[in-house]
Amino acid sequence: MSGTYPFTVHPWSIGLSGIDESQLTHRESVFALSNGHLGWRGNLDEGDPRGIPGSYLNGVYEEYPMPYAEDGYGYPENGQHVINVPNGQILRLLVDDEPFDVRRGALTQHDQCLDFRAGTLHRAVEWTSPTGRTVRVRSTRLVSLAHRSVAAVRYEVEAVDAPMTATVQSELVANEAIPDAHPEGRVQRTVDAPLQGVEHVVFGSAATLVHRTPTSDLGIAVSMDHVVTGSGTTDPDVTTETSADLARTTISLRLEPGDRLEIVKVIGHEWAAAVSAAGLRDRAEGAVADALRDGWDGLVQQQRERLHEYWTCADVRVEGEPKLQQAVRFAMFHIFQAAARAELRSVPGKGLTGAGYDGHTFWDFEAFVLPVLTSTAPAAAEQALRWRHSTLGHARRRAQLLGLAGAAFPWRTIDGRESSGYWPASTIAFHLNADIAFAVLHYVRSTGDDVFEREAGLEILVETARLWMSLGHRDAEGRFHIDGVTGPDEYSAMVDDNVYTNLMAQLNLTGAAAAAKRHPEVADGLGVGDDEIEQWAATAAAMTVPFDVERRVHPQFAGFTDKQRWDFANTSPDQYPLQEHFPYFDLYRKQVVKQADLVLALYLVGDAFTAAEKERAFAYYDALTVRDSSLSAAVQAVIAAEVGHVDLAADYLAETATIDLHDLHENTDAGLHLASLAGIWLALTAGFGGMRDAENGLRFAPRLPSQLTRIAFGVRIGGQTLQLDITPSATVYLLSDGPSRSIRHFDETLVLSPGHATTVTTPPLPAVGRRPVQPPGRAPRDFAAAFAD
Amino acid sequence: MSGTYPFTVHPWSIGLSGIDESQLTHRESVFALSNGHLGWRGNLDEGDPRGIPGSYLNGVYEEYPMPYAEDGYGYPENGQHVINVPNGQILRLLVDDEPFDVRRGALTQHDQCLDFRAGTLHRAVEWTSPTGRTVRVRSTRLVSLAHRSVAAVRYEVEAVDAPMTATVQSELVANEAIPDAHPEGRVQRTVDAPLQGVEHVVFGSAATLVHRTPTSDLGIAVSMDHVVTGSGTTDPDVTTETSADLARTTISLRLEPGDRLEIVKVIGHEWAAAVSAAGLRDRAEGAVADALRDGWDGLVQQQRERLHEYWTCADVRVEGEPKLQQAVRFAMFHIFQAAARAELRSVPGKGLTGAGYDGHTFWDFEAFVLPVLTSTAPAAAEQALRWRHSTLGHARRRAQLLGLAGAAFPWRTIDGRESSGYWPASTIAFHLNADIAFAVLHYVRSTGDDVFEREAGLEILVETARLWMSLGHRDAEGRFHIDGVTGPDEYSAMVDDNVYTNLMAQLNLTGAAAAAKRHPEVADGLGVGDDEIEQWAATAAAMTVPFDVERRVHPQFAGFTDKQRWDFANTSPDQYPLQEHFPYFDLYRKQVVKQADLVLALYLVGDAFTAAEKERAFAYYDALTVRDSSLSAAVQAVIAAEVGHVDLAADYLAETATIDLHDLHENTDAGLHLASLAGIWLALTAGFGGMRDAENGLRFAPRLPSQLTRIAFGVRIGGQTLQLDITPSATVYLLSDGPSRSIRHFDETLVLSPGHATTVTTPPLPAVGRRPVQPPGRAPRDFAAAFAD
Repeated sequence: MSGTYPFTVHPWSIGLSGIDESQLTHRESVFALSNGHLGWRGNLDEGDPRGIPGSYLNGVYEEYPMPYAEDGYGYPENGQHVINVPNGQILRLLVDDEPFDVRRGALTQHDQCLDFRAGTLHRAVEWTSPTGRTVRVRSTRLVSLAHRSVAAVRYEVEAVDAPMTATVQSELVANEAIPDAHPEGRVQRTVDAPLQGVEHVVFGSAATLVHRTPTSDLGIAVSMDHVVTGSGTTDPDVTTETSADLARTTISLRLEPGDRLEIVKVIGHEWAAAVSAAGLRDRAEGAVADALRDGWDGLVQQQRERLHEYWTCADVRVEGEPKLQQAVRFAMFHIFQAAARAELRSVPGKGLTGAGYDGHTFWDFEAFVLPVLTSTAPAAAEQALRWRHSTLGHARRRAQLLGLAGAAFPWRTIDGRESSGYWPASTIAFHLNADIAFAVLHYVRSTGDDVFEREAGLEILVETARLWMSLGHRDAEGRFHIDGVTGPDEYSAMVDDNVYTNLMAQLNLTGAAAAAKRHPEVADGLGVGDDEIEQWAATAAAMTVPFDVERRVHPQFAGFTDKQRWDFANTSPDQYPLQEHFPYFDLYRKQVVKQADLVLALYLVGDAFTAAEKERAFAYYDALTVRDSSLSAAVQAVIAAEVGHVDLAADYLAETATIDLHDLHENTDAGLHLASLAGIWLALTAGFGGMRDAENGLRFAPRLPSQLTRIAFGVRIGGQTLQLDITPSATVYLLSDGPSRSIRHFDETLVLSPGHATTVTTPPLPAVGRRPVQPPGRAPRDFAAAFAD
Repeated sequence: MSGTYPFTVHPWSIGLSGIDESQLTHRESVFALSNGHLGWRGNLDEGDPRGIPGSYLNGVYEEYPMPYAEDGYGYPENGQHVINVPNGQILRLLVDDEPFDVRRGALTQHDQCLDFRAGTLHRAVEWTSPTGRTVRVRSTRLVSLAHRSVAAVRYEVEAVDAPMTATVQSELVANEAIPDAHPEGRVQRTVDAPLQGVEHVVFGSAATLVHRTPTSDLGIAVSMDHVVTGSGTTDPDVTTETSADLARTTISLRLEPGDRLEIVKVIGHEWAAAVSAAGLRDRAEGAVADALRDGWDGLVQQQRERLHEYWTCADVRVEGEPKLQQAVRFAMFHIFQAAARAELRSVPGKGLTGAGYDGHTFWDFEAFVLPVLTSTAPAAAEQALRWRHSTLGHARRRAQLLGLAGAAFPWRTIDGRESSGYWPASTIAFHLNADIAFAVLHYVRSTGDDVFEREAGLEILVETARLWMSLGHRDAEGRFHIDGVTGPDEYSAMVDDNVYTNLMAQLNLTGAAAAAKRHPEVADGLGVGDDEIEQWAATAAAMTVPFDVERRVHPQFAGFTDKQRWDFANTSPDQYPLQEHFPYFDLYRKQVVKQADLVLALYLVGDAFTAAEKERAFAYYDALTVRDSSLSAAVQAVIAAEVGHVDLAADYLAETATIDLHDLHENTDAGLHLASLAGIWLALTAGFGGMRDAENGLRFAPRLPSQLTRIAFGVRIGGQTLQLDITPSATVYLLSDGPSRSIRHFDETLVLSPGHATTVTTPPLPAVGRRPVQPPGRAPRDFAAAFAD
């Protein structure tokens, strides 16, 4: 995206005036509404023009056989792709006999606004038809946080200057055509018209469509009902009709100037794998009836309440750059939307804002998004981890197929089965198992949720620990190695002793051992005896962590620093992302880093490195990291801040904060990047807040960059909230009601009493070396410049 | 294949009595006829029962888009698959109104015999129909070595005991159904009915079908004509009809007992990419007319002459095991068939005996088959290398796409374009480029063919040398490394400094430098200056060859010997081949070898190793090598013989010699393994003959295993033939007319005068260590046991 920032800058909302058809798809992602169970892209009410129509139910996908040019043992056989469920967004307006279309007639007002506190998308339109009739349209939509399967729209039409007949066609549309849904023809065919009609019914102004997916064999029922009021002299005329793929309620009213037609449309969505069509239909219609009892005002009120509760801890105040303030609340709003009601389903990489990555969840959910949820919305974090736990059966079978013990979680999936066909960066990217274990350990430490640990957490830790035991081996000297795996950086593959993987596996093993000791009876039920616990501990102690003595830096993996450096000097700016211009084998065999890998280890397993090692490693890897992945900048921000390059950290933060709003990777069309949205929070809290979590509690090292005058945020600890208010020279810590807690502020231990603000000063910044240099052309934009647009 | 050896043992033919329907597909491969341009599997004349119908024209394939679960830059986009051309084998017989079918009635005789000197497949049948009519059928077929596009059949029917009407339907059949042609549905559809009818014509007893392939856009014309004679009282009745996919000549004659109907059917085959249908038709009909002028006897005579010429040098006499004698002539016959008239086309891994490997050629043609041709049929070898040269344009474009200089030849192809979708063991198996260069160097050294070197050889050497220069890099100490490649062993991938690859690249660079110096004006035309030549030489000198000082063995690649050993003890016999029971990533990261890799380097680049290093390395790798590839046993035979384990070498030879005839890999159905057939010759000549080729001439170290009393073979040197006659205690060398030549016999230099036999004794076998041990259950069968079946 080029040009100036298109959005209105406001601390608690994001708005847009006018309409730019070429940017429509991007805006649909930005303005998406979701509760984690149901997602609506911000398509225009009237359906046209449109970028990519999107109405998703978490867990609804279609399956297709995965194609291989040459097959191999253990290659996953079936792919999964999120599909559109019947679309209830549609409200088409006719002004007399002229269809309302922003591309025709005269559009004198077109404003959209996503409100982070209200949880609604509002639209205000004034339009004059080609025949000269002027109308005002106001629509407000929400995807309910209180009613999991419900979306609702209030749609108002007002005649401005002349009498007219306003006719609204309110629809449910199944099997809408999706432009270029997938590059692979076979998948395209799967996604194109994925639903088979099972049943369609009408009751007065209500209608329900029931469909099923042919291969994944899921049933889906979508139901709508309407409350219609008009200020005109006659009652609105309402008729409803249905066919297999369409339900349509037509509402017509004669309006004099100043008259208004108001429609509240409530849509209920249900799906299940093994429920009868009649059962699904009843559930969907029940959800609509339930929401209608609360009424529009009730739905709006519940929405505000849920969000108010969330923002109490999750809000991050940033002073010094209003667009950054907007960006971080935008991010936190979408993270909450993605997970709030996911409830034992996966959270896709794009949330429910688009069908990018086929609707799959990846390791970055646990590594990037889950820490944010754990600290700000722990109930949602728990649900996400319980979903992983519910997929252990699939993960055990996958491990067994691969000849391994324990559980091997899938690289990408919707329902828990491996759905990735690309092995060098998928099947063997085993680190994701440690990332999940890490998320479990962090969640339990943060919340003290002993019930979760016993019911779900321990089993994840045990099965992933068993995986590592079978995956690695001891050398003649007794050192434990993990060979032939791929770390987070996708420009390396099939490497030995990836430092990130080994250190995370080490945490996994020690964490599993400690948890098993805490719950001996549960461990016993999982077949874990003292011997096994000892082996985990011994293996963790024997873990190999390669170090390049000559260069005094940790190699990303054994031998990495001896490899040939990528020829950055002869790589032109238009050859990025490298993966689209060079073959993987060439990237794999040279020193070039797509995304933080060793640097991610510096963050997540920071205690394994000295401060000097971190500083050297950060500089070494910054010179090799091209950030062709959206997952990198946030981590670089965190470590840049830690090693004292605070202004560089600010530049990385600015990049992270603009990835979706500025569409830096030119793929926000397919949905928002949840992990890089989470990265904004990580850069602020772990970067400038210096927040680290360890066995012995939270540590902070708050230090602002020159561009910011204040950062304030909260984190949940147990049932309490710890608020930090960071200004350049001091930090105020405030703990909510509950027990006292000790934390560390730089080298100092503070005992915080609940309700008492503790103010401590920021020590001076130690001398730091030269600002690290990035590959030519790959330095992050300057903070000010990034937000100037 | 289990049970006893089914074939009749004869030194110059292979025969079979009776018919076993379950083995039909295997026999069709064994009895295939080909001249390298046209191939017919040994299907029964009457078409049913059948295994896999096969009529191939070298270079005729269909193309299909290659499927990827996840795409990547530079992945080859289109696959190629050999297809059946219209089948002219079919001669269906009706005895009165009863179709002749070996599964019905009474089959009192069914003999088939492939004659290595005649180049014909003969069949003798006596059959009594269910209604009691007895006929004798004799058919003899050939694929002409003299007429490249012609096959011919003489088909005789004799009434034995009662009058009858014999009706023969002689056909050309297009788009025959092929059982399970390909596991991938998309390819299956491509191959299933690949031909579109363009034209079909009848002239008297002749008919022609013209087709085209929709995607690869090739035109194919197949024409047939018949010479019919009968000994009955009436003339045979002959009628011909055609439709798009069928031409049928029906020949009918009333026979009294003792009467015979004889049909000579001649079939001409033509194809081209850019020739009109009329042009192709005329060429095919012209070829038939031309062959008919020579007549059946002429065709048979020419066939014998061509083969006689070949056998003069190519024959290998083996005494001590008649089945081995048969096997080696079987092998040499099929190698000649595969290449004799290939003429600027590729030689597929299966020759034209089946559609296995999709009809693709691989590196093993140059590494295994070409040396045999160079030494026994150099004109065919030259054609094959000129074909590679003709594909340099494709190879240069592929290198460019991969960001490399020079030429990158395809891992698998029919027409020279990369057609492999499986990258870890394909795109990055760059060694194939050195294998091709090696074949060029060996051919030029053996033949002294200066014209070839100037016109084609030098350019191949130059472009492959340039590839290595761009693929490798110098480290800080100036050592040259080739990182991230795959060597011959497909149970390792993406490794650094594969010893085989590096040593072969070294030969490639020095060979290119020497050839460029020999032809400075040609080199100049290729842009090769003195600087570049010096760089090649310097790079060759700086080539890294890793050595494990501790274990005193060359690692297959840097770090190989430090890897975890495969857990052979816990691998059960039914888990082989490993690739079908374990994921590749696990094979890749452990010490387990599918096929000779370092041991192939011991053979092809033997001078890079001391005798002690070879002995240690052979034992080390024999303990890790599971021979899941048919390419391994022959190489292990060669090196086992060199290091003194002569009886182990004999066991490996026996395995190589029985791969196809005993169907050891259970896939001979899809065609013969040309490279392992060539391996028989390599095991005998390079193994027990100790033959090595180097800059300074041929060396021999003949030594027989206890099971053999004599091995005699010839090799071409320049225009001469050198004959060796090896008995346990002595070897007789005999050079044909031409200049004297010096060779080495063990450590002795012999100057051979043409026409004078030189007899030298075999030195005593030095003491050798313990017989190397193979992984449990993977030792080769004992020589005697292998041939006892």
